[in-house]
Amino acid sequence: MRIAELTSDEFAESVRSDPVVIIPFGAIEAHGPHLPLSTDCIQPVAMAEIVADLVGGLVAPLVPYGQHSSTKKMPGTIGISMETLKALAVDIMESLVANGVKKIVVLSGHAGSIHIAALKSACEEIAEMYDVKVMMLSDYFIADEMTAELCGGRKDGHGGLVETSRIMALRPDLVKEVRPVGTSTEARYVIDRHPETRFPQQCVGHAKDASQEAGEKVNTYVAEKLSDLILKNMG
Amino acid sequence: MRIAELTSDEFAESVRSDPVVIIPFGAIEAHGPHLPLSTDCIQPVAMAEIVADLVGGLVAPLVPYGQHSSTKKMPGTIGISMETLKALAVDIMESLVANGVKKIVVLSGHAGSIHIAALKSACEEIAEMYDVKVMMLSDYFIADEMTAELCGGRKDGHGGLVETSRIMALRPDLVKEVRPVGTSTEARYVIDRHPETRFPQQCVGHAKDASQEAGEKVNTYVAEKLSDLILKNMG
Amino acid sequence: MRIAELTSDEFAESVRSDPVVIIPFGAIEAHGPHLPLSTDCIQPVAMAEIVADLVGGLVAPLVPYGQHSSTKKMPGTIGISMETLKALAVDIMESLVANGVKKIVVLSGHAGSIHIAALKSACEEIAEMYDVKVMMLSDYFIADEMTAELCGGRKDGHGGLVETSRIMALRPDLVKEVRPVGTSTEARYVIDRHPETRFPQQCVGHAKDASQEAGEKVNTYVAEKLSDLILKNMG
Amino acid sequence: MRIAELTSDEFAESVRSDPVVIIPFGAIEAHGPHLPLSTDCIQPVAMAEIVADLVGGLVAPLVPYGQHSSTKKMPGTIGISMETLKALAVDIMESLVANGVKKIVVLSGHAGSIHIAALKSACEEIAEMYDVKVMMLSDYFIADEMTAELCGGRKDGHGGLVETSRIMALRPDLVKEVRPVGTSTEARYVIDRHPETRFPQQCVGHAKDASQEAGEKVNTYVAEKLSDLILKNMG
Amino acid sequence: MRIAELTSDEFAESVRSDPVVIIPFGAIEAHGPHLPLSTDCIQPVAMAEIVADLVGGLVAPLVPYGQHSSTKKMPGTIGISMETLKALAVDIMESLVANGVKKIVVLSGHAGSIHIAALKSACEEIAEMYDVKVMMLSDYFIADEMTAELCGGRKDGHGGLVETSRIMALRPDLVKEVRPVGTSTEARYVIDRHPETRFPQQCVGHAKDASQEAGEKVNTYVAEKLSDLILKNMG
Amino acid sequence: MRIAELTSDEFAESVRSDPVVIIPFGAIEAHGPHLPLSTDCIQPVAMAEIVADLVGGLVAPLVPYGQHSSTKKMPGTIGISMETLKALAVDIMESLVANGVKKIVVLSGHAGSIHIAALKSACEEIAEMYDVKVMMLSDYFIADEMTAELCGGRKDGHGGLVETSRIMALRPDLVKEVRPVGTSTEARYVIDRHPETRFPQQCVGHAKDASQEAGEKVNTYVAEKLSDLILKNMG
Repeated sequence: MRIAELTSDEFAESVRSDPVVIIPFGAIEAHGPHLPLSTDCIQPVAMAEIVADLVGGLVAPLVPYGQHSSTKKMPGTIGISMETLKALAVDIMESLVANGVKKIVVLSGHAGSIHIAALKSACEEIAEMYDVKVMMLSDYFIADEMTAELCGGRKDGHGGLVETSRIMALRPDLVKEVRPVGTSTEARYVIDRHPETRFPQQCVGHAKDASQEAGEKVNTYVAEKLSDLILKNMG
Repeated sequence: MRIAELTSDEFAESVRSDPVVIIPFGAIEAHGPHLPLSTDCIQPVAMAEIVADLVGGLVAPLVPYGQHSSTKKMPGTIGISMETLKALAVDIMESLVANGVKKIVVLSGHAGSIHIAALKSACEEIAEMYDVKVMMLSDYFIADEMTAELCGGRKDGHGGLVETSRIMALRPDLVKEVRPVGTSTEARYVIDRHPETRFPQQCVGHAKDASQEAGEKVNTYVAEKLSDLILKNMG
Repeated sequence: MRIAELTSDEFAESVRSDPVVIIPFGAIEAHGPHLPLSTDCIQPVAMAEIVADLVGGLVAPLVPYGQHSSTKKMPGTIGISMETLKALAVDIMESLVANGVKKIVVLSGHAGSIHIAALKSACEEIAEMYDVKVMMLSDYFIADEMTAELCGGRKDGHGGLVETSRIMALRPDLVKEVRPVGTSTEARYVIDRHPETRFPQQCVGHAKDASQEAGEKVNTYVAEKLSDLILKNMG
Repeated sequence: MRIAELTSDEFAESVRSDPVVIIPFGAIEAHGPHLPLSTDCIQPVAMAEIVADLVGGLVAPLVPYGQHSSTKKMPGTIGISMETLKALAVDIMESLVANGVKKIVVLSGHAGSIHIAALKSACEEIAEMYDVKVMMLSDYFIADEMTAELCGGRKDGHGGLVETSRIMALRPDLVKEVRPVGTSTEARYVIDRHPETRFPQQCVGHAKDASQEAGEKVNTYVAEKLSDLILKNMG
Repeated sequence: MRIAELTSDEFAESVRSDPVVIIPFGAIEAHGPHLPLSTDCIQPVAMAEIVADLVGGLVAPLVPYGQHSSTKKMPGTIGISMETLKALAVDIMESLVANGVKKIVVLSGHAGSIHIAALKSACEEIAEMYDVKVMMLSDYFIADEMTAELCGGRKDGHGGLVETSRIMALRPDLVKEVRPVGTSTEARYVIDRHPETRFPQQCVGHAKDASQEAGEKVNTYVAEKLSDLILKNMG
Repeated sequence: MRIAELTSDEFAESVRSDPVVIIPFGAIEAHGPHLPLSTDCIQPVAMAEIVADLVGGLVAPLVPYGQHSSTKKMPGTIGISMETLKALAVDIMESLVANGVKKIVVLSGHAGSIHIAALKSACEEIAEMYDVKVMMLSDYFIADEMTAELCGGRKDGHGGLVETSRIMALRPDLVKEVRPVGTSTEARYVIDRHPETRFPQQCVGHAKDASQEAGEKVNTYVAEKLSDLILKNMG
């Protein structure tokens, strides 16, 4: 299941059955005083492993670095450029294709717009060059479908109730009790040199009301929804 | 007002008053059987000219080519890569900055996610390197705020009621009567080699119900809203 | 005739007849106190439109930015790099080729040597990769064939008698009366950091003696000569 | 200790004490029928964590993909280009430097010559641009100092006795019993399109004689030697 | 005089006197049946060495490869891209500047328009980044000033009377007796995939009438003129 | 034998016999107070010419610039980047392949690890793209096989006994009498901004004991060994 743990022979054998390969792309990014910098790594890896079990796929090793905008100057955010991220995604996918892989899912924990565009652009190049099936999404996109239900109309977002709940369900040891109510006062469409000044809590929403139960619910929802999408589009 | 029409001396004189410079980025893209390929050029140029009057700014020459995904293989879409678009935006802004310009608005008619990310990434680099104020948006983002009111709950989008109305208000001579009800059957998160097959009418919504009056209303709304945003953030 | 004004269907229909597509490349560049910054845009667009009529071709949207050397630091010159210009030309041509276009003319208003080399290099790559016919030139090269006749032995050049006359014929509203006799004292082969100091009037020649009649004559000559060249080489 | 598990505040606090940050670079590469594809990930991560404890440093998240030559076409090797690897290393280090980090150790599990050169070149650029201390090595370089002692004069190398022992000490669950005596018949200085044909066992040496004890000995040696080097050069 | 023959100490000593450094850029290019492929190397190296003596300068090692268009597919032309040539020129000049050199002359034997533009663009970047004096030219530009006198009104060019004479004066052993009258039937402004078909003799003019005496005359003229230019602009 | 001295016709004729083409890559690099900056040019050119005679091959023109690390800031080292060097090697090889060459030997005088990796990476790309045989090495690798015999157990290296002897055999006029015993105190694995401070003599070993005879012996050994390797692998 995890490519990292297979031998060369086992991998070769596995590829013969034409499996979906899920590549988790994470990030090291400030997520408030309560969540670890690897929040966006933990989520897609966990989802990828569950989904791979459900659909009979393989999980490639995590790319733990991504591109960041609003949080780029917060302590602990370790970012790479749009160009580097795209090149990395293209190279990994090309190498998988050369290995005989024909179904690839790029699953990003981080959902920043430039980050996602870099991955999308990489996937478009692969889809154009090779006869393979490609999907690209953030598990956050699916998780966000549950925001209304869980947050009861209150705003939620980066490091908020949903994300905190999900990490509580996956790595409770890494979640702190200090959880401010967070807001972003970003001026729409303004490109700041110091966007962190408009985002003092590093998070949006009411992380205080997060719970392990809510997190499990979201994670289950995401894993099942994602499995369905993969089976429907790549079956 | 239009940089293109100024002499070198007039431009130098104008820059002394520290004006906002709006750079319209357009696209040549299939927009259904009823709209011209330059739909995404006509809108930002018109908005830029009205807004420049309102805020006392300058309009730079239009970049008429952009990056495309879902429409990239439809006849008449003439696209450039994410990398080229970003390089172009960076170069133009750097040259404006070297000319003494300190307030730049990148206004894109096209709103594709990779296209917008390329422009955003360019703007972030400029904001990081130079002590200037930068905004970046698509006029489509503002126009879309009126979709609910104008479309009465029906779905609208690319080449739809809102966009058709706007072009009817600006270039009625270029709008055809053949206006199919359009939908996109794109599978979410799938990166297709032939996305055009999932988007047969090249447009989304009820362009048949478009009107010049609606278009004028939207255009006025966009121009005023954009002027307000600029004055607030760059005044 | 103008691709910008066609719908997707009209463009597809037009391409079926195997037309020449002319791509005008302009520039925003200081041209003395009397000419607009878009002087090198106005000329190739006008020529392209006339020639397209004469040869039954299409005109692609103008690229209004180019690469500059001697004028790069004059107010109002907005330049892009050699690399960006080449990438842009390659991308546009590749997209046209993907659209089925088989005959491309790159027509540049600006005639700087690096600018022209970037376009030439782009065209060479296209001619190598695809089975298409490509031409590349500046309309200035053809116009210059009339310099001797019109200037009576006096030196002429950038923003001079010929160019001023041509703009008087095309956009008389944009030509000012202040027209210094201009010279460039550039030291041959020296690469200056501040070439503008050697070119104080921003123009070469006797623009004072320009006339609309001379401009019409040149423009007619250029359009006919260019049409002949296209018909001979791409017919 | 692991950056991934810190919050933004904890990371900021930690950086204030001017710690060494170790970035493990791994690889997904065929290592014979007995070792997992992530062999070159497991080793540097384990070493980095022990060493970080010993020297009071931080461990950045693993980059699990590297550049490959002789094994590039073996099943399961997932490689990236020299250029991408260098860009990635530069970006990560620049982001760490922007975070206030002043001591960086790039620790690579994989020791291919192009791979190491890419990392070295990245480190040279960082050392040139910023006032920081940088080290770059493969833990394999240090481990290899014990080869003579452990292998008793027999040749050892990729996936051989030393490496197998080390993985037995770290992840015994991932080591298989099938362990061929391996040799590479690579023709010196020949650049093959299919180097895998000259390296049929994917490993060099007598992995059969590997042992957990030997592995622990090597790992301890590497960790202590590396700690000493870091304390001496970056203390 | 030749940097290649100096020790590090001698070079350091020499740079203290603020010398001009001439970098010869050559080419390996078909030059008709009578001239060697290194024709464009022999000329600038010879000129550089004479000029360096006259002005008290240094000669850097020859770059023997350049960019080619019309001859690119003739046997023996070994070309590099515009981008590679520019990068090479930038790197060499940056390294000279880091060595304390403040006066650089890029002297190209080859005079193709893209080749020259690449070198010019490189020089412009150096002049922008560093406080140094830079000149860039082809010795062919100066030699060509003598064409009218030597060729008596007949057309001359690549591999023609002037160039053949110059090589006869410098490397008579490499000049063959077979010397066709050459013409290029290149269609102006057409970008061909096979330009060599329009240039069957690989040369332009009456090489048959070349002579060692004429070559010496041209070479002396070029060397003196170039020395004057350097002394005037970089003295 | 030397491509530079052939005409286009002679080259074409020669390529018909499917010869090996050797491309010497040199460097301009500080080599102590006794050796010329072109030490790494003189050696591979001499070897290439002898070997080409022995195997019936061709010698391409020397690339005299390379990439440098430890000596990069010593006076007279003129370096280019890893990227530029690789691009140059790829371009030259691609052009040779387009000329019909099917056997290429990249022979580098300089043996720095990044330099060699750049050349190796270039060769790997060529071997992947084209059906050609490629070898890549430094003549230094072969010469070093004689170090033990010649140096009697004493350390030798850059600018040392072996290298000095080889230049004494090839260009005795360029070797000085001042020959310090040299050592490098480089801290293993440390990436310094000023590596030259750890390498004060610019050379390693006992150059004082160098001799023309030893040099001839090494050069003969290298030439014969290299010829054998070529005949065996490319015959």
